[in-house]
Amino acid sequence: MDQPDRADGSDAVPKSVLARGLRLLDAFSATDVDLTLSELAERTGLPKPTAYRMLNELVTWGGVERTTRGYRLGMSLFVLGQRVPRHRELREAALPYLEDLYEATHENIHLAVPVGNDTLFLEKVSGRRSTPIVSRVGGRLPAYCTATGKVFLAYGSPDQLRQVVEAGLTRLTPRTIVMPGLLRQELARALERGYGVNREEAEVGVSAVAAPVFDHRRSVIAAISITGWAQHLDLERLAPAVRTAALALSRELARDTANGTLRWTAR
Amino acid sequence: MDQPDRADGSDAVPKSVLARGLRLLDAFSATDVDLTLSELAERTGLPKPTAYRMLNELVTWGGVERTTRGYRLGMSLFVLGQRVPRHRELREAALPYLEDLYEATHENIHLAVPVGNDTLFLEKVSGRRSTPIVSRVGGRLPAYCTATGKVFLAYGSPDQLRQVVEAGLTRLTPRTIVMPGLLRQELARALERGYGVNREEAEVGVSAVAAPVFDHRRSVIAAISITGWAQHLDLERLAPAVRTAALALSRELARDTANGTLRWTAR
Repeated sequence: MDQPDRADGSDAVPKSVLARGLRLLDAFSATDVDLTLSELAERTGLPKPTAYRMLNELVTWGGVERTTRGYRLGMSLFVLGQRVPRHRELREAALPYLEDLYEATHENIHLAVPVGNDTLFLEKVSGRRSTPIVSRVGGRLPAYCTATGKVFLAYGSPDQLRQVVEAGLTRLTPRTIVMPGLLRQELARALERGYGVNREEAEVGVSAVAAPVFDHRRSVIAAISITGWAQHLDLERLAPAVRTAALALSRELARDTANGTLRWTAR
Repeated sequence: MDQPDRADGSDAVPKSVLARGLRLLDAFSATDVDLTLSELAERTGLPKPTAYRMLNELVTWGGVERTTRGYRLGMSLFVLGQRVPRHRELREAALPYLEDLYEATHENIHLAVPVGNDTLFLEKVSGRRSTPIVSRVGGRLPAYCTATGKVFLAYGSPDQLRQVVEAGLTRLTPRTIVMPGLLRQELARALERGYGVNREEAEVGVSAVAAPVFDHRRSVIAAISITGWAQHLDLERLAPAVRTAALALSRELARDTANGTLRWTAR
């Protein structure tokens, strides 16, 4: 949804009215505050009168709000986003474990899920003493250069890894792993040790260690990570802590699924 | 958006294609995991073939996902919801203050905003020791029987209060204030003291104390609250703590608005 990811690879304006209207919502990036009618028309490729008419409907619906200079995403969309069951149930189950890990380390604690070939952050627990980092709840980063992402790739299918390698390993920092052979070795190590690491591969100065969260069928459905200043973080020393949290959460998810409390199951 | 709140008071199926498609998203409640095509058609009043066609488009877009028995809200919607600027910027600014208040009290800490005649919870910080309570991030409760809501009403317009009273003060618990005169007195007290309280008025056994968060123009744009077991919580003793957090956040918002860091301003 972020950058149009269409099966046919095109960025063509869709024909259907519904799809065109939804495209307007996608036009707002993660850092936009508001956009003018002109900006929205340009970003979506829709004619201005069409965009205007559809924006009125989106405003009536509540997903868009008017501002002095144009439009912005509306609070109703935030409310709707909180209802997504995969996010909601996983977050509720995970939060106590994330908080425990935070109290133990005072670093940034993330809960992430695999989406496509990325890692998507569902939740972040941190505080004043935590390293300021770029990750945002709801934000995505590539899997190959993040600790949580490497966990997903390590426990994922060979097909997916092949796709990721074929798409090309873009360098983000001087330490990003861009050679497929090295990445494969790294992932094999992660699988063996039960945790993945990121040594300044996504952001200079920032490192992380992550462990897999399993569902009742032993599929990896999420990962928990600790992220902080590369200089301060002893990744090997923290690995058992994050693995313990992830395993405890896995046990709870299995229990909740068995007794029917957790109704969402990974597809 | 939750219960159709149309200007004409009707729940009629909208004519526009876009509005009909969006109605499908609204059909998922806060507790649904997934819904079948039949359930969706029934809830929205759309003919099954129409609903089916639109759901396909929503699936392509990413806002809906298929499940074994039907459909559920998709992760893309969660991602989009995180981009809502009012939520995003306020949450980012508030989080350190909410965390401080949590570390000081180990109770449930909420950040709420006024939406219509309700209070809407944008964020909640809590832990294992906090009282288990019903509020959900993204959830709404009426203003007249919640601490944050009373803050909004106390600092709000007489017109709004009149509306709330005319809509009727429904009893939620034996202690809900349902007499307009008593509510007005309560709100006057809140305005005078600078904080609002809820003594088991929304949920039996649960009390809360809340303080207003001001923007640079001294409008109340949010509130912070502490919520816990009525028996344990000394509301008057905690009031200065929550007021301090709210005032500190207000000062930061004013500073960030002045230096351009905070680009969202309340409408």
